[in-house]
Amino acid sequence: MAKQFDTIALVGIGLIGSSIAREIKDKGLARSVTVSSRSDATLKRAQELGLGDRYTTSAAEAVKDADLVVVSVPVGASGAVAAEIAANLKPGAIVTDVGSTKGSVIAQMAPHMPPGVHFIPGHPIAGTEYSGPDAGFIGLFKGRWCILTPLPETDEAAKAKLRTFWETLGSMVDDMDPEHHDKVLAIVSHLPHIIAYNIVGTADDLEAVTESEVIKYSASGFRDFTRLAASDPIMWRDVCLHNKDAILEMLARFSEDLAYLQRAIRWGDGDKLFDLFTRTRAIRRSIIQAGQDTEMVDFGRHAMDQK
Amino acid sequence: MAKQFDTIALVGIGLIGSSIAREIKDKGLARSVTVSSRSDATLKRAQELGLGDRYTTSAAEAVKDADLVVVSVPVGASGAVAAEIAANLKPGAIVTDVGSTKGSVIAQMAPHMPPGVHFIPGHPIAGTEYSGPDAGFIGLFKGRWCILTPLPETDEAAKAKLRTFWETLGSMVDDMDPEHHDKVLAIVSHLPHIIAYNIVGTADDLEAVTESEVIKYSASGFRDFTRLAASDPIMWRDVCLHNKDAILEMLARFSEDLAYLQRAIRWGDGDKLFDLFTRTRAIRRSIIQAGQDTEMVDFGRHAMDQK
Ligand SMILES: NC(=O)c1ccc[n+]([C@@H]2O[C@H](COP(=O)([O-])OP(=O)(O)OC[C@H]3O[C@@H](n4cnc5c(N)ncnc54)[C@H](OP(=O)(O)O)[C@@H]3O)[C@@H](O)[C@H]2O)c1
Ligand SMILES: NC(=O)c1ccc[n+]([C@@H]2O[C@H](COP(=O)([O-])OP(=O)(O)OC[C@H]3O[C@@H](n4cnc5c(N)ncnc54)[C@H](OP(=O)(O)O)[C@@H]3O)[C@@H](O)[C@H]2O)c1
Repeated sequence: MAKQFDTIALVGIGLIGSSIAREIKDKGLARSVTVSSRSDATLKRAQELGLGDRYTTSAAEAVKDADLVVVSVPVGASGAVAAEIAANLKPGAIVTDVGSTKGSVIAQMAPHMPPGVHFIPGHPIAGTEYSGPDAGFIGLFKGRWCILTPLPETDEAAKAKLRTFWETLGSMVDDMDPEHHDKVLAIVSHLPHIIAYNIVGTADDLEAVTESEVIKYSASGFRDFTRLAASDPIMWRDVCLHNKDAILEMLARFSEDLAYLQRAIRWGDGDKLFDLFTRTRAIRRSIIQAGQDTEMVDFGRHAMDQK
Repeated sequence: MAKQFDTIALVGIGLIGSSIAREIKDKGLARSVTVSSRSDATLKRAQELGLGDRYTTSAAEAVKDADLVVVSVPVGASGAVAAEIAANLKPGAIVTDVGSTKGSVIAQMAPHMPPGVHFIPGHPIAGTEYSGPDAGFIGLFKGRWCILTPLPETDEAAKAKLRTFWETLGSMVDDMDPEHHDKVLAIVSHLPHIIAYNIVGTADDLEAVTESEVIKYSASGFRDFTRLAASDPIMWRDVCLHNKDAILEMLARFSEDLAYLQRAIRWGDGDKLFDLFTRTRAIRRSIIQAGQDTEMVDFGRHAMDQK
């Protein structure tokens, strides 16, 4: 495939950064890739995995000659990273990120961006419950959406270049207003993770039911929540702190709906329960039709078991 | 394999009943299997699938010569089925069920059981989001637990026979007090389903976020909940109506914990969030170690996609 950039700098080389690195290498999208991570341990591992051409623990150093800079760190660290790299950014460079919240990332990073640098925030809607450079893989972004939340004044050519980059990684690209992004993600991603963490916590605290019982019988539903609840705690702490308003709004709605459902259970209102339990089926069918989940029984777990 | 029963009657031939039927046939556990379902449509389909040797829409008719009767209907229908079959049960027959709640099933069925019949309630902790006779498959019970909740006076030999039957289907068998069963299942199964139904309902009701956005971006977490929320509405209505007390207790605890988490988000208490998000990881590791879920990324969905 044709090179899209001369030099790409990856700041942060965990699940997302290392998946991007693997794709760049696999598809030959840059002449040279500079990998940076703040810790020696992660950087060393990235080097062992051969994820780039140059390696440094200094983000400022890493971005020096870069035409594209991809920042893939927990959203709470975006501001510090922006401050660190700002002075070394090359005029005309594109700076993007992959953070799960966008309003806060823009507020943290945009003020540091020098004129002549194209800052285009982004968020690939793809991930797993694992983290670190070993967790990345080719194909993570395939068939998944990537949302860009460009600022109003953003250069069209730069936007088009970034869009093409994500499309080459297999993504479909959408433009969105950052505030709307944060609302959408609050319901499709942040609330599900918070609820999953919460229910696993509730189960862990029970006296009447032992942990070993929860584990033994988890195939009856509980285990589905434990995947999300095993996600990286730093990433999710930062998401909660940096998308607070939208998350609190969704939590309030969720709790209101749950109180209604709870009341139906208490009063034995079978019709209300049946109605709710019926209309939710349609959404899963649509998700499967849209290619965003497998229709295989149990997410295909059973089929994997049989091998 | 040696025949364990001369005649087995299966009352109800949906996901669970038909999985049992397939196992009996596959492993040759009975000389003859009588299949019954209340509707002509389901019975006809069972016949097309060759799930038994004789077919009838009358449960009373079905149980006449049976040495083992397995009732696999929604828990709300257990009492009516028990009343219907009672007079035709053969002395010495074992009657069991597979219902997801046990206290209520015992209250509904036990009073109808004639003396000399061994009533041993049971619950295989295995299932999927699909239902009906086409949804069943060989291997559903393999490596999963089956809980028996025998009444105090139950015959040991009958219990041993039923235990062997489930073990032959690949299950590990546990005895449990029905009340404790209902508490355990309330947290590992009923609450997860109710929460999943609820969050999918909340998402469906939003004005600020469209349904098509929820579907497009569902891979970021939401889709994990939609599998449970696509489960059979009648089954789940009945579970809610028939395990009310334990479910309401778990809901109260869940809501209390969620209020605490919500407060930590509102006040930006990152340490509290980090602590909760950390301790929940251990449970998933234990579930994977116990063989109750796959450790593959994303439940193995990704690996399935690549084929
Ligand atoms: N995981 C997902 O499912 C997913 C999906 C979409 C978007 N995202 C977003 O992608 C970003 C990265 O997530 P990830 O899953 O790739 O994380 P990850 O695997 O944990 O990797 C995090 C990377 O950021 C670095 N880092 C951590 N804290 C830092 C700090 N305070 N300052 C500077 N660098 C720091 C780490 O460096 P060291 O290891 O050297 O400390 C590592 O290189 C996050 O903003 C997240 O919201 C995640
Ligand atoms: N699904 C799971 O994941 C799972 C797991 C463990 C235990 N269970 C328990 O297993 C039982 C059966 O569930 P399933 O998933 O096999 O259900 P299913 O696939 O929906 O099949 C239900 C069967 O019960 C019959 N039935 C429905 N309503 C009835 C009524 N009012 N009176 C008499 N028969 C009736 C149906 O007959 P027609 O089709 O002819 O109407 C059908 O044969 C339930 O008690 C459930 O709690 C389910």
